[in-house]
Amino acid sequence: MEGRLYIVGVGPGHQDHMTFRAKQAIEESDTIIGYETYVGLVRGLIEGKEIHRYAMTQEVERAQQCIDLARSGRTVSLVSSGDPGIYGMAGLIYETLAEQGWDPASGMHVEVIPGVSALSSCASIVGSPLMTDFAVVSMSDLMVPWEIIAKRVEAAAIGDFVTVIYNPASKKRVRQLAEARKILLKHRKPSTPVAIIKGAYRDAQSVVMTDLGSLEEHAEMLGMTCTVIVGNSSTYSYRDLMINPRGYKSKYTLGTSPGNP
Amino acid sequence: MEGRLYIVGVGPGHQDHMTFRAKQAIEESDTIIGYETYVGLVRGLIEGKEIHRYAMTQEVERAQQCIDLARSGRTVSLVSSGDPGIYGMAGLIYETLAEQGWDPASGMHVEVIPGVSALSSCASIVGSPLMTDFAVVSMSDLMVPWEIIAKRVEAAAIGDFVTVIYNPASKKRVRQLAEARKILLKHRKPSTPVAIIKGAYRDAQSVVMTDLGSLEEHAEMLGMTCTVIVGNSSTYSYRDLMINPRGYKSKYTLGTSPGNP
Repeated sequence: MEGRLYIVGVGPGHQDHMTFRAKQAIEESDTIIGYETYVGLVRGLIEGKEIHRYAMTQEVERAQQCIDLARSGRTVSLVSSGDPGIYGMAGLIYETLAEQGWDPASGMHVEVIPGVSALSSCASIVGSPLMTDFAVVSMSDLMVPWEIIAKRVEAAAIGDFVTVIYNPASKKRVRQLAEARKILLKHRKPSTPVAIIKGAYRDAQSVVMTDLGSLEEHAEMLGMTCTVIVGNSSTYSYRDLMINPRGYKSKYTLGTSPGNP
Repeated sequence: MEGRLYIVGVGPGHQDHMTFRAKQAIEESDTIIGYETYVGLVRGLIEGKEIHRYAMTQEVERAQQCIDLARSGRTVSLVSSGDPGIYGMAGLIYETLAEQGWDPASGMHVEVIPGVSALSSCASIVGSPLMTDFAVVSMSDLMVPWEIIAKRVEAAAIGDFVTVIYNPASKKRVRQLAEARKILLKHRKPSTPVAIIKGAYRDAQSVVMTDLGSLEEHAEMLGMTCTVIVGNSSTYSYRDLMINPRGYKSKYTLGTSPGNP
């Protein structure tokens, strides 16, 4: 009998921000697979289970192993932080299954359990930057040619999208964010608010509020657990917050309450 | 003494997909505010609390009332579905507070509690469409002029972003999605996969997989609880799923495992 495969998002990293469904799926599983760091995030839930830890560069093998283990009758949770449906493992699992002729209707049960994504958790920490249309772009050119990424940054800038940047830099890869900043500066003011959020809701969380002009001064804090949110033409700073109004001023009026003349 | 204000996202609507933190905040609160529908989603958690239900068009008054109630010493949860940080009430609360000179450091405690957003929940139901860069655009022109929305759709199309469309239509507003489709078709094939997700994870959930060419045939199902996901040039359909590969084929190889020659 075939087992079950759960692709589980555990949210930003603190168990408070995990969903009930994610916890339930992990508890129901006999086998847990994930990056070392992600497995660590759920260590309180997985005692006594078979645990497979992976390094960062073995995604294709990991997807295949998850499928093989579930096919052998196990209940498997592939865990990751944030939401596995956003730049996560859901894609590689479905790609592999599709290549092998899997039938969702009659074949093994596969379920993506969404989590609070990095874009949601990071936005919640810095104010309300995502009240308007936004674009999400990853700076990683491991899987996508840089020319395509650059074209997307330009399109996001032209469309005046608030721009959420995933994977802004790694130890070996720092040039991309600097180039993206140059492209954005062709269309946005240097005073455009920018937030850098590192390790959202984890013990070592740190946040820097800066602007597009000064972003390069913070290059040393950028890394794989960082997300960068670049405001659009409507974004403003208020104390340590980054706020996007919910629409154009002509379309609504604040302060209609008697308490706020 | 001032109270506390929680802006709580309860996720797509089924309590399984709520976070522990959201439940905790609601339980801790003595006062619950929200749209009728959203309050209904958490009815099991709010017995004995003071409950304020709102209609759809009173957001400014609602924001002010939340602030007033919290200032009077109450612990208030403003509840909404999905993530309040994405086109949600977080913005109007911070805008109003900023206008009134609130100081996050010394003033009333305000906390945005992120939830599983509609984009995450809808993507998880239809496969893995968000494995690549994506743009999120709302079709509602109540607060934003249509010309700006149209420009954004065009930019998303030019940038080859997977495009997530919020608020695709309402009873009175159907023209916008038809126009967006026309703009997208200038840059994408009619065979581009499109998913329409209605009431994700609710009892009445319904999903239609179609393509950009045939989208108009499904106009009757579109409404305010719908999200539409339009693929990009890499998106493919596999049975009832919409899959985006995690990168460009030249950049990785599937099937390196011995089990998949």
